[in-house]
Amino acid sequence: MTNSNLSSAEFKSNLIAKINGKTKPVGSLGKIEKLAEQIAISQHTLSPVMNACRLTIFAGDHGMANAGVSAFPQIVTQQMVLNFLSGGAAANVFARSNNVKIQVVDAGVACDPINHPHLISHRIAPGTKNAITESAMTKEQAQRAIVFGKNIGNNENFQAECFGEMGIGNTSSATLIAHKILGLSLDTLTGRGTGLDDAGLARKRDLLKQAANRTNEHLSPMVAMQEYGGFEIAMMAGAMIGAAESEKIVIVDGFIATSAALIAQQISPAIKQNLVFAHVSEEQGHLALLDAIGAKPLLNLDMRLGEGTGALLAWPLVKAAAAMLNEMASFESASVSNIT
Amino acid sequence: MTNSNLSSAEFKSNLIAKINGKTKPVGSLGKIEKLAEQIAISQHTLSPVMNACRLTIFAGDHGMANAGVSAFPQIVTQQMVLNFLSGGAAANVFARSNNVKIQVVDAGVACDPINHPHLISHRIAPGTKNAITESAMTKEQAQRAIVFGKNIGNNENFQAECFGEMGIGNTSSATLIAHKILGLSLDTLTGRGTGLDDAGLARKRDLLKQAANRTNEHLSPMVAMQEYGGFEIAMMAGAMIGAAESEKIVIVDGFIATSAALIAQQISPAIKQNLVFAHVSEEQGHLALLDAIGAKPLLNLDMRLGEGTGALLAWPLVKAAAAMLNEMASFESASVSNIT
Repeated sequence: MTNSNLSSAEFKSNLIAKINGKTKPVGSLGKIEKLAEQIAISQHTLSPVMNACRLTIFAGDHGMANAGVSAFPQIVTQQMVLNFLSGGAAANVFARSNNVKIQVVDAGVACDPINHPHLISHRIAPGTKNAITESAMTKEQAQRAIVFGKNIGNNENFQAECFGEMGIGNTSSATLIAHKILGLSLDTLTGRGTGLDDAGLARKRDLLKQAANRTNEHLSPMVAMQEYGGFEIAMMAGAMIGAAESEKIVIVDGFIATSAALIAQQISPAIKQNLVFAHVSEEQGHLALLDAIGAKPLLNLDMRLGEGTGALLAWPLVKAAAAMLNEMASFESASVSNIT
Repeated sequence: MTNSNLSSAEFKSNLIAKINGKTKPVGSLGKIEKLAEQIAISQHTLSPVMNACRLTIFAGDHGMANAGVSAFPQIVTQQMVLNFLSGGAAANVFARSNNVKIQVVDAGVACDPINHPHLISHRIAPGTKNAITESAMTKEQAQRAIVFGKNIGNNENFQAECFGEMGIGNTSSATLIAHKILGLSLDTLTGRGTGLDDAGLARKRDLLKQAANRTNEHLSPMVAMQEYGGFEIAMMAGAMIGAAESEKIVIVDGFIATSAALIAQQISPAIKQNLVFAHVSEEQGHLALLDAIGAKPLLNLDMRLGEGTGALLAWPLVKAAAAMLNEMASFESASVSNIT
């Protein structure tokens, strides 16, 4: 009987038996065991393949940035795209260090189109509108971004996908999206982003309150995206859905990626099984958002950079978890005595 | 002026400037930045090499095991040594997954000498004496184990060393060592080890109280080692000193490895700079021990297996931290605008 013919309960029971039969005290690999279960279930096999991982960084600009929600000027988005393409950003370094492929998508940076042989250019517009005073994007733009993201995620060459982002102002987008979908308070969610000082944070809080006040208290995921989202967030949400639909593990990065995961799993609840939450960021809203969606992150390294850097550092854990399931001896095969 | 001619304060200031000049908000890589600092300081260079890591597993038996302090029978130590040599244990799997070399040392397993071409046999004795009623080892045995460990740690081919252990009963050794050196209570330190039930835990607590009562309230590290230690713990302590003295990063594993680190840094306080604490284990005493020595572990994965498994999972973080320092572009080199 193949695994696909087993009932879900039988498969789960075989999976637990396989993990508990490994030469270690039951449960002693903690979260690595849970990760192994998740990987096996997502691939419907007790011997999952987990060799290749890719990071896609989506870059997009935010009309809000120029209103003063960020410590960095908007031009940094395009400068960082060039840095990614030159291999000099933290994401590049961590990707090389952990043997992860990397690609960069221009989802809508506020500049003329960037001409570079390795850039995937799919610009919805040169930045969103200023979401403090008007809708960030049209419904058609949001849908276009999600559909393109799905195509990025849906491919056959990788068993795990990290999605990262770059977009000056996008902690503001993530904050407003989580606020409108989940009802978490703006005070809980609004943080310092790339490093606002106290005055900057107070200004950001005021601006986000203005932005929130112009729409209904609760919004559907698609409307929240349209009103406050960035093109890079919409594409990430689509990419997560596409990757999960093709049975991949999606390694979710920080606050902004988690806001994309929130939208993705509200649109397509079944993908929850495929999401691995890499880390809890130092950005204030992330822990609250993770708690609200019941996500248990693997790492807590006090990071708050984005770009997929947290996801990249979690990839070795995903790989090791699958290797545990595939390669570790059992008490029986290794002739090791079990508990007395 | 070379780095070695700089004062320690000038070197540190240059190091911080290099990290803060990288294309990321200041401090946004959190613990990875602290790790990069530690690596650079341990190698006295702003461009440290961090390519190769090795795990050495020290195996030894404990006279206490047969008194009933563990859920597993003593024979499992030798069975697991064979499992390590066959490549089937969790440590082997994680080492392969993270490209870490592995070697196994018989420090004193309670059986006839094991004949295997890849085993390093340096048996102090076939297991320690029963530390509940008498000294675990002689002073000469403890010193011999530490000296041999130093030689293992002191080599030129790796920039980072993980040390793991296997020894049925060795959470009891670690508990008694931490209790006698630091004065932490036995109730705080005594945990379930490989998986004792409530009755087993109560029995272990009683036995460890008996063991503690036969010596003075506080003991020096060397006497604590002699009274309660295992040969594998003594060798690990020596290996940590040897590795740190040759400017390596020592990745400290779980509860038992941390008890070895406690001894090592009491004997040789300067090595503290080289110790990276990989994770906090689920074993009850580990968090208390880490707190008592001011160690901040990188990971919390609810693991409690030993063998170096936690250290192996932290190695990619160490490697990534050095890569950040060496490979990441600066705001200047990448023409990225800094904070406004």
